[in-house]
Amino acid sequence: MSEAQLDLHSLADVRDAAENALSDRARAYINGGAADETTLADNDAAWSRLALDPRMLSGVTEPDLSVTLLGRRRPHPIVIAPTAFAALVHTEAEPGIARAAADTRTVMCLSTFASTPPAELAERVPDVTRWFQLYVFRDRGATRALIAAAEAHGYEALVLTVDRPVLGIRERERRMGVRVDPVNTIGSPLPMNSLPVDTSTRVDGSLTWTDLERFASETELPVLVKGILTARDARLAADHGAAAVIVSNHGGRQLDTTLSGADALPEVADAVGSELDVLVDGGVRRGTDIVKALALGARAVLVGRPLLWGLGLDGSAGARLVLELLLEELEIAMALTGAASVSELDQSFVRPAPWARP
Amino acid sequence: MSEAQLDLHSLADVRDAAENALSDRARAYINGGAADETTLADNDAAWSRLALDPRMLSGVTEPDLSVTLLGRRRPHPIVIAPTAFAALVHTEAEPGIARAAADTRTVMCLSTFASTPPAELAERVPDVTRWFQLYVFRDRGATRALIAAAEAHGYEALVLTVDRPVLGIRERERRMGVRVDPVNTIGSPLPMNSLPVDTSTRVDGSLTWTDLERFASETELPVLVKGILTARDARLAADHGAAAVIVSNHGGRQLDTTLSGADALPEVADAVGSELDVLVDGGVRRGTDIVKALALGARAVLVGRPLLWGLGLDGSAGARLVLELLLEELEIAMALTGAASVSELDQSFVRPAPWARP
Amino acid sequence: MSEAQLDLHSLADVRDAAENALSDRARAYINGGAADETTLADNDAAWSRLALDPRMLSGVTEPDLSVTLLGRRRPHPIVIAPTAFAALVHTEAEPGIARAAADTRTVMCLSTFASTPPAELAERVPDVTRWFQLYVFRDRGATRALIAAAEAHGYEALVLTVDRPVLGIRERERRMGVRVDPVNTIGSPLPMNSLPVDTSTRVDGSLTWTDLERFASETELPVLVKGILTARDARLAADHGAAAVIVSNHGGRQLDTTLSGADALPEVADAVGSELDVLVDGGVRRGTDIVKALALGARAVLVGRPLLWGLGLDGSAGARLVLELLLEELEIAMALTGAASVSELDQSFVRPAPWARP
Amino acid sequence: MSEAQLDLHSLADVRDAAENALSDRARAYINGGAADETTLADNDAAWSRLALDPRMLSGVTEPDLSVTLLGRRRPHPIVIAPTAFAALVHTEAEPGIARAAADTRTVMCLSTFASTPPAELAERVPDVTRWFQLYVFRDRGATRALIAAAEAHGYEALVLTVDRPVLGIRERERRMGVRVDPVNTIGSPLPMNSLPVDTSTRVDGSLTWTDLERFASETELPVLVKGILTARDARLAADHGAAAVIVSNHGGRQLDTTLSGADALPEVADAVGSELDVLVDGGVRRGTDIVKALALGARAVLVGRPLLWGLGLDGSAGARLVLELLLEELEIAMALTGAASVSELDQSFVRPAPWARP
Repeated sequence: MSEAQLDLHSLADVRDAAENALSDRARAYINGGAADETTLADNDAAWSRLALDPRMLSGVTEPDLSVTLLGRRRPHPIVIAPTAFAALVHTEAEPGIARAAADTRTVMCLSTFASTPPAELAERVPDVTRWFQLYVFRDRGATRALIAAAEAHGYEALVLTVDRPVLGIRERERRMGVRVDPVNTIGSPLPMNSLPVDTSTRVDGSLTWTDLERFASETELPVLVKGILTARDARLAADHGAAAVIVSNHGGRQLDTTLSGADALPEVADAVGSELDVLVDGGVRRGTDIVKALALGARAVLVGRPLLWGLGLDGSAGARLVLELLLEELEIAMALTGAASVSELDQSFVRPAPWARP
Repeated sequence: MSEAQLDLHSLADVRDAAENALSDRARAYINGGAADETTLADNDAAWSRLALDPRMLSGVTEPDLSVTLLGRRRPHPIVIAPTAFAALVHTEAEPGIARAAADTRTVMCLSTFASTPPAELAERVPDVTRWFQLYVFRDRGATRALIAAAEAHGYEALVLTVDRPVLGIRERERRMGVRVDPVNTIGSPLPMNSLPVDTSTRVDGSLTWTDLERFASETELPVLVKGILTARDARLAADHGAAAVIVSNHGGRQLDTTLSGADALPEVADAVGSELDVLVDGGVRRGTDIVKALALGARAVLVGRPLLWGLGLDGSAGARLVLELLLEELEIAMALTGAASVSELDQSFVRPAPWARP
Repeated sequence: MSEAQLDLHSLADVRDAAENALSDRARAYINGGAADETTLADNDAAWSRLALDPRMLSGVTEPDLSVTLLGRRRPHPIVIAPTAFAALVHTEAEPGIARAAADTRTVMCLSTFASTPPAELAERVPDVTRWFQLYVFRDRGATRALIAAAEAHGYEALVLTVDRPVLGIRERERRMGVRVDPVNTIGSPLPMNSLPVDTSTRVDGSLTWTDLERFASETELPVLVKGILTARDARLAADHGAAAVIVSNHGGRQLDTTLSGADALPEVADAVGSELDVLVDGGVRRGTDIVKALALGARAVLVGRPLLWGLGLDGSAGARLVLELLLEELEIAMALTGAASVSELDQSFVRPAPWARP
Repeated sequence: MSEAQLDLHSLADVRDAAENALSDRARAYINGGAADETTLADNDAAWSRLALDPRMLSGVTEPDLSVTLLGRRRPHPIVIAPTAFAALVHTEAEPGIARAAADTRTVMCLSTFASTPPAELAERVPDVTRWFQLYVFRDRGATRALIAAAEAHGYEALVLTVDRPVLGIRERERRMGVRVDPVNTIGSPLPMNSLPVDTSTRVDGSLTWTDLERFASETELPVLVKGILTARDARLAADHGAAAVIVSNHGGRQLDTTLSGADALPEVADAVGSELDVLVDGGVRRGTDIVKALALGARAVLVGRPLLWGLGLDGSAGARLVLELLLEELEIAMALTGAASVSELDQSFVRPAPWARP
């Protein structure tokens, strides 16, 4: 453990330490949410509104954390969520995160708006399981080029973000001097290292479920649909070719006062969980959060901001610390819950917390 | 954007900036509510107790914000609520607000207790859609003169306020040195530029539903009844000639511990929404608040205090900023909610927020 | 209005001003509650968990506040609750409170532990309607002497306190140096001007419902039973000769974590309200609190601590201010609720507040 | 009362005073909980979410506090919970606590991880009713030696802790420099006076219900199973030889976000209360907490941290003060609740508190 990590015992510790380490601009960009940040705050709080009902004397001390995800066995259910512009916080950028992912056998999902193009990441960190997050641009040629690059460089899945037809109202960013016009401007070649003000306006917000079906049919890769918050949309995703859905509110950065992943997950899992994989993100900060997500029907969880906190603090080593802390907590939480493996977890392990629903 | 507006990204920013800009007396008068200000605070909080369920991949980036209000098409659902004595905060007074309304194609509702008489406002800002808010005075001649003035100067509707038989207990105002006797004194000629202590005691609190029916029959203008909080009273309004009802608790200034507009709206819309227009006010500060109001059955929302904050801060330009911020937020909220037009919104887009009803 | 009253616009203002005016000992004795003071705090909060549903255009500006209490018409529903040792806060003591009661036509209930004996109060303030609050002592002769004194000096009712078999855990008092043994000691002659540590231990905690029946049969005066919190006990009181019950938790000073009067009232009113008068106390600080109590089935409310705050601040004039503020608020609240008289109020005017039961 | 106890009127006072008296390390070890300490905080809060419905005029001033526990009559329902390493806070250590227990006729449960071996405690304080809390070690010989020592020295029961297959995430301890590997290491001889980092890793986390059955059959002593939070596990305990179950979340030190004892108790009592004794611990700090536990079906309550606060503050005298305060409060709470004896208490005395479930 490096000097920088000496007193970091939880993701909250990493967050607090990163508060001081990041620039004002980076902190606003990473930690900010939409409007009053009601949903941003609730992403964290929602997991705490769930109580765990453990089982004693199960004889479990070393639980099996492995899961089946998109038909493949993975050693654990943690996936790194796509986040933009890691170079904002550390020069090691996305390759630093990917190295931490490789060391911990974690899936790394690269963002369209990453500071590192998909080909470069694959070259620099070849030994990590990679997914590629896709925004569809008005310039469909640029979009196809991105997909082709992902396919060509060993990315195993496409993650299509569907909750960003326009950019949310991000006041922390605006206070830092950026003001984005809500009406999208015309597409243009994609500068991978630019700030959101330049690139974000080129996203094609007029995408429909028919477009999803066409994209899914044009690629060999499984397409995960990210940004689902209702059973209705989960059903539509399943009916239009999605391989999996990711229950997500975009880290509370798009439409304020939507449900958290924790609250939307049960109805989505109930609607489509028997047909395709359901993943969830938003506010996953503790091993117990992951146990709850799995018990409520998720196959895996995505973790985003904490990787940027860790990266900003200590480069790849900081990102690895975040993953190691989560994995240690998950192992302890499974043992104390009394589940020998992830497949044993179901809704009987979770109930509304009396401290929240008295 | 003027210098004064440089760091104003939301109505909350405008409010905070106005806190410093206004005189103690003006701040107490504008921002105060009745008694413990329970209802005043809840007006804001109630919208946050509702969660939005958005729909993805609807293909909407430029939603149609237009609504039909009192049988006419309006470009958006925002109406400026009647507020008294705008001259307290800025010399541009009501004409300043009306100018901002004209620039943004917003309906302007002038108060009986405005600093500017209805004729003068019509003359100074002829190109704004104007409504006139009516208090009925013990001196019915004065009342009829007001109605005649409104009719003569192109006001398109009368808004009859019904929740002020006596003045509420406004402690902030009292602390500023005003103490109003709850028993109304005898009517007298109406000084338009005086303080509430002089004028308010002349309002006739003994008005009944029969009086409403008579007023409605004596004017060509549609009469909106403002101050409805229950299905019972909405039914009575509909049965006594109201063209529309405005769900309102008078900005939390009359009877403390009544419901907010957000909470009273559903039962009112359910009771009379199929017969006449339902509007709502109280605590509308975000584009998402407006989407929720529309989804719950409102045709339009009224916004009051924020216009006075904006006016006090920067005259007409400040009032315009408030309207522009709200319109920008509304457009983004509609796009992210996935509703192409207001008519698509219904109760399926809204649910009790888990963070409030865990 | 005296100098001391210049900026007092509510009972909360009086409380805050009295905080500074009272001695540490008096403040601890008056404002303290039992144990963690959960119930003490909830007495105030419980009224705020109820919302009012007003009726508009009722034509009411000067509502009739009169009520029938113990078979007699009273001009309003406010009763001064029995409180001990008023001399602790001001030399005018109970006669000062009684004078304020007489001036406002309020019923004054004198405590067994008052600083002023019942005969003396009757002599000094003959023109006030008086009730006498009774503790039963182990020395039944002393008890009978008290009753006889009350009967002889024009007290119109006896209020038997039943929730004090032993003294509650009053930590604020203990911190001031008083520590009471929970086991009652042997009775002895009653020193009217002593502190609770001396007198309280002589109360007979072993009283039963049979004792109530005997007391009720031995006096001409109606006996009100104070300290009822459940339908069960209200039923027992009705069956054992009570003329009325007072829903009360003794100002949060006895058993901590019991219900507030506001929460216990509906089930008590439902159980016995058709047979006898139901009164309520605890946390009544606003005119709207009184309207809610009446709507939920109370005939009258008792107010205790605020009179001591007022008395401590400005003698009898301070006590009168408290009553005048409450009466002014009650009148406004009735007018804004749209009830022309108390008899019009029923449960349809009250609902659980959305801000508390979201 | 010693100088140190002069202003201590409740367990909260003792806690606050101990905050200053304890070393940083001891404070972290005693007061800390797992992860975000959600469950730790809720242990206290959960009792306050229950309201008491007292009965008046029951004639009770000196209630009978005695209970039947494990078939024997005990003068009151308080048991001292097993806690580790009392020598951390005071040289009088466990014998100091046991002396206080003897003086107040309280059951003392000694921890496997106590600073004092079972034989030594029995020798130094022979006149206290003793139970022995058992962790099962990988070295079963060491475990059997512990049981034999307990049997040989007059311990009347074994308390098997079942909620610690691995150590919880105790961040306060980690911040003090201790970091425990979650995977248990190989057993070794048991050093009774060492710190948790050394001993805790030898606990055998792979214990099952079959092991419980074998242990129960191998000893004459009744086996209480500590750490039950669900009806399911209570049923399993009853079916595998437990003489009693202790509803407990290990003082919030193991799996965060589990239920509090107060919340888990009703379903456990409902499941097995008619067959065996149910005890509860976690956050018991007031006499009213104990009355609630008894009313919800518990035979007794365990109290842990407060004894260490008292011991740390003033040795055995401080521990005795804690027990005396609780017993005084319990007596008063019973009298004010109107229950003449513990057997009269049932669920009709308790309801969800309106201030928590509005």
